[in-house]
Amino acid sequence: MKKIAIVGASGYSGEELVRLLLSHPHVELSAVTSRQYAGQPLARIFPRFAHHPRTATLCFSEPDVAQLAQQAEIVFLALPHGVAAEYARPLLQHGSIVIDLSADFRLRDPAVYQEFYAHDHPAPELLGQAVYGLPEFYREQIRTASLIASPGCYPTGILLPTLPLLKAGLIQPTGIIANSLSGVSGAGRKAELDYLFCECNESVRAYGLPKHRHLSEIEQELSLAAGTAVTIQFTPHLIPVNRGILTTLYLTPTTPCRNSAEAAAVGEKIAAAYRAAYAQEPFVRLLEGRALPDTKNVTGTNVCEIAWRLDPRTGRLLVVSAEDNLVKGASGQAVQSMNIRCGFPETAGLM
Amino acid sequence: MKKIAIVGASGYSGEELVRLLLSHPHVELSAVTSRQYAGQPLARIFPRFAHHPRTATLCFSEPDVAQLAQQAEIVFLALPHGVAAEYARPLLQHGSIVIDLSADFRLRDPAVYQEFYAHDHPAPELLGQAVYGLPEFYREQIRTASLIASPGCYPTGILLPTLPLLKAGLIQPTGIIANSLSGVSGAGRKAELDYLFCECNESVRAYGLPKHRHLSEIEQELSLAAGTAVTIQFTPHLIPVNRGILTTLYLTPTTPCRNSAEAAAVGEKIAAAYRAAYAQEPFVRLLEGRALPDTKNVTGTNVCEIAWRLDPRTGRLLVVSAEDNLVKGASGQAVQSMNIRCGFPETAGLM
Amino acid sequence: MKKIAIVGASGYSGEELVRLLLSHPHVELSAVTSRQYAGQPLARIFPRFAHHPRTATLCFSEPDVAQLAQQAEIVFLALPHGVAAEYARPLLQHGSIVIDLSADFRLRDPAVYQEFYAHDHPAPELLGQAVYGLPEFYREQIRTASLIASPGCYPTGILLPTLPLLKAGLIQPTGIIANSLSGVSGAGRKAELDYLFCECNESVRAYGLPKHRHLSEIEQELSLAAGTAVTIQFTPHLIPVNRGILTTLYLTPTTPCRNSAEAAAVGEKIAAAYRAAYAQEPFVRLLEGRALPDTKNVTGTNVCEIAWRLDPRTGRLLVVSAEDNLVKGASGQAVQSMNIRCGFPETAGLM
Amino acid sequence: MKKIAIVGASGYSGEELVRLLLSHPHVELSAVTSRQYAGQPLARIFPRFAHHPRTATLCFSEPDVAQLAQQAEIVFLALPHGVAAEYARPLLQHGSIVIDLSADFRLRDPAVYQEFYAHDHPAPELLGQAVYGLPEFYREQIRTASLIASPGCYPTGILLPTLPLLKAGLIQPTGIIANSLSGVSGAGRKAELDYLFCECNESVRAYGLPKHRHLSEIEQELSLAAGTAVTIQFTPHLIPVNRGILTTLYLTPTTPCRNSAEAAAVGEKIAAAYRAAYAQEPFVRLLEGRALPDTKNVTGTNVCEIAWRLDPRTGRLLVVSAEDNLVKGASGQAVQSMNIRCGFPETAGLM
Repeated sequence: MKKIAIVGASGYSGEELVRLLLSHPHVELSAVTSRQYAGQPLARIFPRFAHHPRTATLCFSEPDVAQLAQQAEIVFLALPHGVAAEYARPLLQHGSIVIDLSADFRLRDPAVYQEFYAHDHPAPELLGQAVYGLPEFYREQIRTASLIASPGCYPTGILLPTLPLLKAGLIQPTGIIANSLSGVSGAGRKAELDYLFCECNESVRAYGLPKHRHLSEIEQELSLAAGTAVTIQFTPHLIPVNRGILTTLYLTPTTPCRNSAEAAAVGEKIAAAYRAAYAQEPFVRLLEGRALPDTKNVTGTNVCEIAWRLDPRTGRLLVVSAEDNLVKGASGQAVQSMNIRCGFPETAGLM
Repeated sequence: MKKIAIVGASGYSGEELVRLLLSHPHVELSAVTSRQYAGQPLARIFPRFAHHPRTATLCFSEPDVAQLAQQAEIVFLALPHGVAAEYARPLLQHGSIVIDLSADFRLRDPAVYQEFYAHDHPAPELLGQAVYGLPEFYREQIRTASLIASPGCYPTGILLPTLPLLKAGLIQPTGIIANSLSGVSGAGRKAELDYLFCECNESVRAYGLPKHRHLSEIEQELSLAAGTAVTIQFTPHLIPVNRGILTTLYLTPTTPCRNSAEAAAVGEKIAAAYRAAYAQEPFVRLLEGRALPDTKNVTGTNVCEIAWRLDPRTGRLLVVSAEDNLVKGASGQAVQSMNIRCGFPETAGLM
Repeated sequence: MKKIAIVGASGYSGEELVRLLLSHPHVELSAVTSRQYAGQPLARIFPRFAHHPRTATLCFSEPDVAQLAQQAEIVFLALPHGVAAEYARPLLQHGSIVIDLSADFRLRDPAVYQEFYAHDHPAPELLGQAVYGLPEFYREQIRTASLIASPGCYPTGILLPTLPLLKAGLIQPTGIIANSLSGVSGAGRKAELDYLFCECNESVRAYGLPKHRHLSEIEQELSLAAGTAVTIQFTPHLIPVNRGILTTLYLTPTTPCRNSAEAAAVGEKIAAAYRAAYAQEPFVRLLEGRALPDTKNVTGTNVCEIAWRLDPRTGRLLVVSAEDNLVKGASGQAVQSMNIRCGFPETAGLM
Repeated sequence: MKKIAIVGASGYSGEELVRLLLSHPHVELSAVTSRQYAGQPLARIFPRFAHHPRTATLCFSEPDVAQLAQQAEIVFLALPHGVAAEYARPLLQHGSIVIDLSADFRLRDPAVYQEFYAHDHPAPELLGQAVYGLPEFYREQIRTASLIASPGCYPTGILLPTLPLLKAGLIQPTGIIANSLSGVSGAGRKAELDYLFCECNESVRAYGLPKHRHLSEIEQELSLAAGTAVTIQFTPHLIPVNRGILTTLYLTPTTPCRNSAEAAAVGEKIAAAYRAAYAQEPFVRLLEGRALPDTKNVTGTNVCEIAWRLDPRTGRLLVVSAEDNLVKGASGQAVQSMNIRCGFPETAGLM
């Protein structure tokens, strides 16, 4: 049983990490920190975990790096960007393995970080050793990483459907549009008027147009896959569900698809590329037949559903993905990376 | 007080017509039909109208054309496509003014109807006299029309933001993408598993990909505005709200917008085109500043909200619209047409 | 057109007053105050009113009593308890008619106020002139009142079904239980974690057990009706809807109802008492047959629905009421009182 | 690994059984039946299970008793009442252990069944061997039962908080009121207008007044516990959540509680009775301090939360319970019984 700590366990991602790690067969949750709730039993703040035997003695503590490094081999950081790096640096020096759910180590270029996050990167010297924690594409690097930068929720739902096609040269790297719909937990557990029940229920809205922060990591990874600089259009929307992101992608095949014969030919290649990428992946589900992704089929799971359609009327390729923003889009994916890093079965605690 | 009848008043659009017409200052709702509920008081089926004095004596009746033509000068048809035309023909012969909320008279070409609705047009001889009931663009024709084809919910939310730009030559007629999110009432009051509470709540999904029926009327109107055949990409999604459609449009300006100077220049033209089209329109609201449309700001009203952003990173124009699918997207717009046709103030009963 | 002001117009009750008064045929909304939004156009904060011509020039202002007294004949106070009285006193001195939606003037006894609201009553000298603004029972007093204390949301849904039976001696004044379910808008527009979307959605909970503040006014009015001190059990619950309160009341008939014959006899008296009280009331709807109240049939309206059942198995009388907490439970009822006070038709602006 | 079958696996309870049994460490789901979906892969109908390795080969079949008896040692029946008994009889003859989620074997007296379910009991000869599957009270009998009648959702949420107090003589057996709020999944996966999204969302209503079928088993168990015939008042309500039941109970202590001293004395006894009953129970959580049950803390789990308050104003005891109607209220409890019956750890597959 490996010992694990979560720094910043009182937000939605932190709470989801608690859920997953409490029932994980190979780890023991040995510390949870929260400045706000320090000294209080975990089970008082999150009653839904109270029936788990482990929570009888688990209290929130102040985040103390030296203590954390002693209590745990692996430390998850569920902190705001900027703050996460302040903990990552000393934890790495103490020899901890750090899995960071913030944006602090996702970008290779600190200048891009500065552009999108509006402050200097707090630890640029660590960027070289960080691995982007998208297991389907960085599994080998994750196996030996000390610092894993777990991807954002929107990036996961956009990169998984896009990377295999871009790598196979089946879609053009230009003109990509990602239209995403996110549940309200994506906004975090913050006491703001905009996220009150009455402001979100019976409401739908786009937000953050046109330059959302997640664009930085999405475009970084797409550019690496395409071998050329990729700029995309990305529009996030807020919808009244607790969890789940549905992304509809508008893509242009590199080969024309203006009639059903062309579409059939291109379709075979797309199907083959997806199968090659994901047929053996435990957490990517390629839908077949007439089925389309639905967030209710993935919430609570670490699965990302993908389906696609070629439209001969427009020549475009439509791809739709669904994921749980708190699981495959955050905490579940971080646990998946932990499993890989620790040599556990990759699906341990996630099925 | 003009006398009004509603044929097919038991669905969501019919119910919304009842709501609007009961409180309309210039009309009297004299007949409501429903095969399913014939003989039952309106107030028993729709208790929320029971406190209105008029409903004390209003019962659902079987739809009888001769009787309807006697009871009312204006007849609203809130019936499925195919069925609506069967009532429109004899009602017109009796001299009634018909406002049809179905798709039966929206398309000018019966072949397109056949392609999208999968059966022969039931009354092609009437297409010539039908007027597309989008008041912002067909107000003059509506004034004298006997047969008004009220637009679909998605088309309204797509045409209002698009037509002024297309007419002004500010956007390219190619590559238009409309990504729409609709509340569940758009599916109608139908006892189907897919629309059960537990199947829609905490769920988001795309549907009907890639060729939704509403494409036919959208493309017809866009083509007329552009003066060339327009084919668009349209993706409807179902989201867990009762009412409301939010549409995010991805458009390409005809003039490049790859930096802030270019964007500023194009932006002025777009703002001018929208102001020219809508500054005097009572039911189109152009949002300014940082505000973005939110369905909760339009539900229950006949207003369509529009906001736009130019993205110099991609050179694209993003436009977002919000409407209530049952009001501006259906029954409210039909009442607006009635007001125009009857010479009432256009906002009567709709503010 | 009487001039009207709303003090504290940025909360949910204030917003609902704006909605109702903007479309009211006999008044002009001449001032809205909000400390938080002073100087900002009303239409920027509440975009849904932006299409109303009146809002073109309506801005939030700081609450200034002398100015308010000049701008308006009638002033609605939509303020927290304690604060409301501070405005009521000088406004009354300036000759304004004050309709207060807070709890400050609902209780006749300042000691009860102190017990339930945990501070001294801020203006006990005004209690004598305050009229409890429940029109169905205080209509005559409202006609001439300068200070109207509009009832709380829960009290309205409990008193309307209970008072006629108590006055007719048909139920015992002891053992009354009121189990209420309220939408989240009842908690006000407050940035608190408990009312975030993700904390309320897919959640139901009781709160404030066992002594909610509204008990004070409920028991005051029940005691007056019964002619004896009445203590009730009242349990509020929070449910994931924006608006609406459903109350289920457990009552004991004064005459035994242990079999169907007894129940039939008592039932006739109950039906008669309700008819006598409400048959002519425009905003109380007695449901007949098998229908039961449903909040969706009253939201957005000023109607309170009531249905009842005698249960011979237990001898009890069950009564269920439904209302919109923001309309009949707050702002609509306040407008109803204004209509009465000003001699307008009682239903003006409320149908 | 014991082999397990589910008859009627396409409803919400059946689907929840699939979820729980797929991840259960000691069983193998060997057959799932559904007349409607016979021949179709389970993963096509329930995509959320598609990523589980076991579902690769699992198809719905027609329910064939002989085959089921061969395929499985334990058969869960998730069928309508009346139908369940038709399968239970031959399955028992084949030697299967039957865990029935319907009402068919919950009542000891076939006359009571006839009264509440409006048809003759389909297999009265089996009632003698049936065990009521409420593990907290029938654990020993469950260990050896061949026919386990798993309790209804409402009864579970009412009996767990009530039985210990009744057995300890701390509450009167008369005058018990249970006010319950249920999520829509409680109505089953049925294509009926009443359960459409738009009919349930933004709606709350009581239903089935005043004599719900579940009263029969509730009163049977309460009467057994009290040693006298108990008749209760029970009011179910439908609220817009997928899952969860919150029950508020109004009880009368046998010892007076009209002041804080009396309440303190009685409170100690109540606390002791609950602790004695549930301190060692893995699936009953007694809340302490100011916490109150919230369905969001139990959904997806097999836990029932309980909290209580004495109200010296009225002398009453209020108890609130929360459970997931599909887990502790149905499928989870059935699995708990299976665990007991098979000698597995009682929490296996349920933590």
